[in-house]
Amino acid sequence: MGVRLLELAMEVGGTLHGDGTVLIEDAATIEHAESDHITFASSADHHAAVEGCRAAAVVVPPGFPALSIPRIEVDDPTAAFARIVCRFRPPREWEIAGRPADSLPATSRCGDGTEVDPTAVVGRDVTIGRRCRIYAGVVIGDGTVIGDDVTLFPRVVLYEKTVVGDRVVIHAGAVIGAYGFGYRTVDGRHERLDQLGHVEIESDVEIGAGTTIDRGTFDATVVGQGTKIDNLVMVGHNCRIGKHNLICSQAGVAGSCTTGDYVVLAGQAGLADHIKLGDMARVAAKSGIMQDVPAGQTVAGLPAMPEREFWRLWANIVKVPELRKQLRNIERRLEGLDASAERDAA
Amino acid sequence: MGVRLLELAMEVGGTLHGDGTVLIEDAATIEHAESDHITFASSADHHAAVEGCRAAAVVVPPGFPALSIPRIEVDDPTAAFARIVCRFRPPREWEIAGRPADSLPATSRCGDGTEVDPTAVVGRDVTIGRRCRIYAGVVIGDGTVIGDDVTLFPRVVLYEKTVVGDRVVIHAGAVIGAYGFGYRTVDGRHERLDQLGHVEIESDVEIGAGTTIDRGTFDATVVGQGTKIDNLVMVGHNCRIGKHNLICSQAGVAGSCTTGDYVVLAGQAGLADHIKLGDMARVAAKSGIMQDVPAGQTVAGLPAMPEREFWRLWANIVKVPELRKQLRNIERRLEGLDASAERDAA
Amino acid sequence: MGVRLLELAMEVGGTLHGDGTVLIEDAATIEHAESDHITFASSADHHAAVEGCRAAAVVVPPGFPALSIPRIEVDDPTAAFARIVCRFRPPREWEIAGRPADSLPATSRCGDGTEVDPTAVVGRDVTIGRRCRIYAGVVIGDGTVIGDDVTLFPRVVLYEKTVVGDRVVIHAGAVIGAYGFGYRTVDGRHERLDQLGHVEIESDVEIGAGTTIDRGTFDATVVGQGTKIDNLVMVGHNCRIGKHNLICSQAGVAGSCTTGDYVVLAGQAGLADHIKLGDMARVAAKSGIMQDVPAGQTVAGLPAMPEREFWRLWANIVKVPELRKQLRNIERRLEGLDASAERDAA
Repeated sequence: MGVRLLELAMEVGGTLHGDGTVLIEDAATIEHAESDHITFASSADHHAAVEGCRAAAVVVPPGFPALSIPRIEVDDPTAAFARIVCRFRPPREWEIAGRPADSLPATSRCGDGTEVDPTAVVGRDVTIGRRCRIYAGVVIGDGTVIGDDVTLFPRVVLYEKTVVGDRVVIHAGAVIGAYGFGYRTVDGRHERLDQLGHVEIESDVEIGAGTTIDRGTFDATVVGQGTKIDNLVMVGHNCRIGKHNLICSQAGVAGSCTTGDYVVLAGQAGLADHIKLGDMARVAAKSGIMQDVPAGQTVAGLPAMPEREFWRLWANIVKVPELRKQLRNIERRLEGLDASAERDAA
Repeated sequence: MGVRLLELAMEVGGTLHGDGTVLIEDAATIEHAESDHITFASSADHHAAVEGCRAAAVVVPPGFPALSIPRIEVDDPTAAFARIVCRFRPPREWEIAGRPADSLPATSRCGDGTEVDPTAVVGRDVTIGRRCRIYAGVVIGDGTVIGDDVTLFPRVVLYEKTVVGDRVVIHAGAVIGAYGFGYRTVDGRHERLDQLGHVEIESDVEIGAGTTIDRGTFDATVVGQGTKIDNLVMVGHNCRIGKHNLICSQAGVAGSCTTGDYVVLAGQAGLADHIKLGDMARVAAKSGIMQDVPAGQTVAGLPAMPEREFWRLWANIVKVPELRKQLRNIERRLEGLDASAERDAA
Repeated sequence: MGVRLLELAMEVGGTLHGDGTVLIEDAATIEHAESDHITFASSADHHAAVEGCRAAAVVVPPGFPALSIPRIEVDDPTAAFARIVCRFRPPREWEIAGRPADSLPATSRCGDGTEVDPTAVVGRDVTIGRRCRIYAGVVIGDGTVIGDDVTLFPRVVLYEKTVVGDRVVIHAGAVIGAYGFGYRTVDGRHERLDQLGHVEIESDVEIGAGTTIDRGTFDATVVGQGTKIDNLVMVGHNCRIGKHNLICSQAGVAGSCTTGDYVVLAGQAGLADHIKLGDMARVAAKSGIMQDVPAGQTVAGLPAMPEREFWRLWANIVKVPELRKQLRNIERRLEGLDASAERDAA
């Protein structure tokens, strides 16, 4: 089943340097490549790592320094390597067991080419676009509207009246449209406020496994076009997430926050409620945001501050033990001076 | 489809100030209201925001300052606005496809008016009360007991022998009763300790999407009456959560903690195991609790301390860079003094 | 239904001290035991607690100090108590509704003694070993391979080509094999990188409810033998988790991290991407790891540092307010000295 290196070079349209007859059995990253594998390096930074690895050959960008193993030069090594990986281990389309179109409720409908697993549950008055893939165990609430080319992986739940754009991908177990966490306390009991809104997911959004996005109280909770959300993220009710944001795993956005475009929230970051982040604002991992962040600013810490300030402060904080020693020295010297001053006075 | 403002005022029993013939097309919050919408303000604090918004009319509390747009005065503007929202966008009851009562296992039973989706899986010896709503894909383990008026949203899992009170709401994807994370290490392998307990959810509890509550080791893990838990929260084995707590998103409560009544955990807070929080204790967002907290105290920080101390400490911490500069100044002055002392002595 | 204490002592092979005729009605932990219950103490540390509790009898280790209530002495009180709990409240095996073997897709197969709930969805080319338990609503993607004696609790999702070893337990709602969070930004749009790998769960691993483990980009994301993962944990793409790790609830491991053997991550800890933790490294709760951790080291803080340093630093940090006061004193004294020096000079 091996493939000659020359053949791989031709397949990815690359320039071969070295012995093209080498037989390649599989493709793996630098750390995990065996002696009959091909690997790849995205930049010259990985030169030493490639030299130290066990691979038989490597895909590199143009101008990569000389190596002791054969190499294929291409403009985009990552994409070329992906193609080679697919040659050895073809990705398998996860098939959906067909379902007769007339198995949906009478008031719901699907566009051409859409596949709905027979175990998926579709509510009333639901519209699903064309070429969608609705996997096993998905639950779609009444009145939901879904665009074209959408993928809902197994067990996604969309509560009633959710709106989903085109080319959206939602991973297994995500829950869109649960009630917001809003209560008022009457006679010692927490009464839930009405949660009359819904969730709107714009086109090209991707949402990770287990993530939850709550509906708005009166309006929509919105996730803007092109935004990517990782696993186990919480987006609270009434939030308006901008376009092309990147929200990393386990980040939490409390109720009624708004983010601009191209905002980044690193892992486990948290926003208090009603926070506004400007365009291109960035929040470091684990930070806790208690104040609005202007456009373009990167913040870090708990409570968060501009990242540069945070690190300057931190550099000072770690000196505190030393600082206390200095202080004790100074006090001793002062006592010496006092004593000598007293002697002088005497 | 528009409605005259006067008609809306009458519907909510409010007092109209201004032109009642204005035609209203929809209801939206201040930030999102268009020029043919009605909005609302819960207090006079929002006066400037209302003046700056585009809405055609507004619902306000009595005594709200004068405005350039017509207003409806009512005692509870939020409730009145909710009613108006429902007029324009009626909430839709998410229907459950009927299921014949005899489709349950022979040893299980449901009370009158309970609806169980045909894709929900009900185990043996399960008792479900009256007027419950069991949505698609819910899984109810053997021996579980559920009270009246309970809603289990899609894909909730109750492990065997769970006990659920009346009027409990559990959102999609929550998992109640998985094994506690308890192991002992024998010959280099972690062996799971027996997890023989179960979970008891008292009446009027609400549990958010994706939240997990583990069973007790020998007894019950208990969530007390009226407590509200947000999304993606973890409650560990053997915990006893008190009554009327509010536990915000992504908070984590490690094993064997107890909380009093009216405790609040803000988002992403974490409790070490065996922590006790007194009645009305409050934990700030992202705090890490390593010691018991007495009744009524608010704590913050990592490790947590009384909130006031935390902020006082923080105000001092941000001065540390300045402090180091002061210290350098002092040392220079001391050297000056030393030098002059030497000169004096000479 | 009560049982004489003597009978319980005989059942667990223990030595009875005190009145064996006492009638025991149930078993409960020290805090929750009623006056007709038996309880247990794992060590003499709990002597005072036992004396203060309401239980009628107690299971203790050899050499436990004298007590006012009857006791059963055994070598392993926890195991003996678990047996007694089972006598009063037998754990119930959560049964799986049978499914005819031929209901799987033609290209998939199950070993002897394996039970698959009829609502579980099994893809094509799936191999499931012997004596497995596949609960309701589980979804198993195409090409997945599962070993012997595996338990998949309700609603677990395994994406295509997942590999699962023997004796693995995965709790409800966990998602294994979703796409990694890897994008590159082209013309202002985030394009997902190919996610061609899969997830490999080695033998004896346990995975908690709602936990998510993403597939590798080109290779496998691996969870090593005997590792135990708690609820709502995130393991990113390309991670290689070592053997016998303990990863507590809500911890997050970003992409391409590797951990040695016997590593412990406490609750809500977070690792930046590409971090390496040595064997037996330990990460304190809520810590944020931004640098590799050598074998055997315990780290804490945000950013994390060796735990001892962290606590030393913390002990100094809490003194900062005092330190500022000292500094003000010193400045006053210096002013005094300056003044007297001026007087001297005058």
